[in-house]
Formats: sequence, C-alpha cells, structure tokens
Amino acid sequence: MIEAKVATEKCVTAGLLVIGDEILSGRTKDKNIGFVAEYLTGIGIDLCEVRVVPDVVPEIVDALNAMRARYTYVFTTGGIGPTHDDMTADAIAAAFGVEISEDPRVIALLSQWVKPEDMNEARRRMARVPHGAELVENAVSKVPGFWIGNVIVMAGVPGIMQAMLAAVAPKLETGLPTVSRTIRAGSIAEGAYASELSALAECYPDLSIGSYPSMVDGRFDNEIVVRGKNESKVVEAVAAIGAFLARMQKN
Amino acid sequence: MIEAKVATEKCVTAGLLVIGDEILSGRTKDKNIGFVAEYLTGIGIDLCEVRVVPDVVPEIVDALNAMRARYTYVFTTGGIGPTHDDMTADAIAAAFGVEISEDPRVIALLSQWVKPEDMNEARRRMARVPHGAELVENAVSKVPGFWIGNVIVMAGVPGIMQAMLAAVAPKLETGLPTVSRTIRAGSIAEGAYASELSALAECYPDLSIGSYPSMVDGRFDNEIVVRGKNESKVVEAVAAIGAFLARMQKN
Repeated sequence: MIEAKVATEKCVTAGLLVIGDEILSGRTKDKNIGFVAEYLTGIGIDLCEVRVVPDVVPEIVDALNAMRARYTYVFTTGGIGPTHDDMTADAIAAAFGVEISEDPRVIALLSQWVKPEDMNEARRRMARVPHGAELVENAVSKVPGFWIGNVIVMAGVPGIMQAMLAAVAPKLETGLPTVSRTIRAGSIAEGAYASELSALAECYPDLSIGSYPSMVDGRFDNEIVVRGKNESKVVEAVAAIGAFLARMQKN
Repeated sequence: MIEAKVATEKCVTAGLLVIGDEILSGRTKDKNIGFVAEYLTGIGIDLCEVRVVPDVVPEIVDALNAMRARYTYVFTTGGIGPTHDDMTADAIAAAFGVEISEDPRVIALLSQWVKPEDMNEARRRMARVPHGAELVENAVSKVPGFWIGNVIVMAGVPGIMQAMLAAVAPKLETGLPTVSRTIRAGSIAEGAYASELSALAECYPDLSIGSYPSMVDGRFDNEIVVRGKNESKVVEAVAAIGAFLARMQKN
C-alpha cells in the first residue's frame, strides 16, 4: 500500500543581503546579521544564507537575483539613505526591471519633519522607491523601507532596521518554529563524544545536531545544540545526549 | 599621443566564507567577519564579499567555487572540528576535485597531546586534509587549518581563527594598503551635506567616500569616511569635506 505523503511541515526560508562598503572594510562591525537570524528563527522563518556586498549596483543586483529566486523572502540592510553611496533602491529596481521615481507617499512622510526650504535633492532621493513596492514603516526616523515581490528593504542603522523588521513581521508568512535546546558539555572534549553524537545524529535525520566549542580563559567550553521542528524528537535526542555525557563525566 | 597606462596599483582581493548553522540560526553571533575585514584591510587586501552558509556540503562547494574563481584569496571559518557536523574539509576537497585522507603531519601534531588510547575515530577525523594542501599553524589548540589553491581554511572559534590568520598573513600577497580617514559630521543631517558630498565624490572617482549615520541616544550622529590607495588624494578630499561641514555648522 502506498501512503500519500502529507505535508506536515511548512518551511519558510529567507536570505539576508547586507549592503555596505563599511562592513567589508571592517570600519563598521555588523550588528544586523545576528539580530535578523535570531528574530527570524523565533518566528519560524529559516535563514538559509547571508551575503555581504559592497555599494556597487551590479554586485547588489547579482546577489539579490540569486537569493530571491531561492528563498521565500530576502531581507536587505543598508544603503537607503540620502547620500551618493546609497545605491540600494536603484539596485533593487534594476534587479526587478522596474522603474524608480520619487514616491508621493514618502514625500508626504518627509514633509512632516523636513521644512519646505530644507527639502533638497538629497532628501528627495530618500523618497525614490521602485514602482510596485509597498512601504515599510520606520517608527524611529520616519523615512520608510519598502517591500517589493519577496524582497524587504531595510535601513542599515540597527535601531531603525529592528523597527522595520518589527513592522513587517506580522505580515510575513511563517512556518513551524524551530525548537532549540542547548546541552552544556563543558570541558568534555569534542573528540571524546563525537562518535556517540554522530551515531545519534544518524538516528534523527530530521534534527540538526551541532557541537559548538568556544574558549573561556584558554580552555575549551563545549556545547551541543539540538534543533528541529518536532519538539518531542528534540526532547528525546537531548535526553540521549545527556545520558552519554553523564557517563563520560563519571569516567 | 597615446600614453601607456602604467599599473601603479596592485589590487589583492578576498572573499570570506563563514560556515555554520549556528550563525544562521542566531544561536552564535559571528565575531569573525568584522575581525577578518579589519585585519585584511590593514595588510592591503580588499575584502570584496562575505557569505554565510549552513553545514551542508553542496552549499559550501557552490559558494566556495563562485568565490575562489573571483578573488585572489578565499578565507573560510568554521566546520573543521571532530564532530559529524564539521563538513568543511570534505566540502573543500569536493570543490577542488581532490582526494581527502588522514594527513600524517596532523596525526603527528595530534599525538603530541592526545594519548594513544584516546586517539579515536573522531579525533582522527580532525586530521583529514585534502591532498595537496599546506597546513596552517594553530598556536592556540594545535589542530591546524589548511591552505589549498587560493583557499585558506580556518577554525570558527574566534581566538583560534585569529591565531591562524596571524600565522598565514606573512605568506600572503598583499596590495597597497587603503588609507582611511573619518570626519565627524555629528548632528549635521546627511540630507544637508549629501549634495556637496556627492559632487566631491564625482571629482575623486578613485576614492570611496561614504556617509555613515548611527544613532546615539535617539539622535543621529553622522560620520563621513574617505578611503583610497592614494594618501594625498584622501587628504585633499578630507580637507574639502571639512570646509563645507564647517560652513554648515556656522549656518
């Protein structure tokens, strides 16, 4: 008898495109990747890839097109300000093959805090939005991001990016959240538990089981992380890992 | 008269491939991108792209092959430990189409601190190195990284990665270092100086001139960064920017 395969899990995926010379030169240390990763994981969207590219239109276009064909959503950060090095909106329009022009909705928003005599060309540049895009609210500094197709375009300043992500999150399709449990292995060497952990991972092909060493005061401090969509399987695997670690600790 | 174009600048480029589910889930906040970016910039290597991919061999292979064809060097971090989720060495061998096996040089290193009775399959796994690779010294925890073709494979633990980068740096080809100067614009709005900055950037096509807003206590605090290989041009541009900012501050 052939059983019909029932889709019990909905998988929603994402890519993150970080745009900015300042990240690649090391001048600015990115704070958005970790935040977006944790946030998306928390709402049941699996971040599958991150790319960091410079403020160069063809580079942005190529990376964006590769990622938007592959994932449910692509989030971008950076490059939407008023200065000449802010290329993101033009690059997104080029990637989608749509026109870009000053959006009257953004001009209306800008007009709430920019005096008419200060509404210069540079500030109007922030109102350039690809045709067909929805605006993404910016509760911090008003100038919005935008959403076109499956691409959500956000600011690079962390506080503003976070506000935009919070504004857009309720409208996103989300999947089953991933359950994650961490087991501390401490100073038990990875090399001591790797064989048992590998055998266990083979028994749970639907779980992601990772071993993560870190160094504290020059000594390894290891953690094992079990992640998956099925909580009871995660709990089972965690119990099995706890059991073999306890055995090793006694030895 | 046609003048021959003399190559006065040697440009050495790099890509960085960060490998690990834990970065994409947000469980681990990456500390390597910013460090590698700043380090490479400091020794005259231009970091042009970063990608973060999961512990999945075909994903690592595809990203690596795309990047190693494009840049002078590709650096990887993560996935070279003894556990089943450490896929990097196998993926690198697959990308280069070479065999991989236990390297007697690494077994000899491991034997200095692993007792014979503890030399299990998992620990031997750390000795798997693609054929044709050179070893990269690990002054912190001994197990080496490796270097094959233009790809340098390093650990993910920041302290170990940094030791490996320091070990390999003297052997890297390097280009002219980039000179970088930061001018504080403070609370002068980007929208106020964007037009003048843009005009200036057009006069200096060889310089990278960026405007970087950040928020401090809910207010914008802006900086302008001028970067380039030619120090006297950088100094010129910085002086011009200082002049127009001073004019705006007076107004």
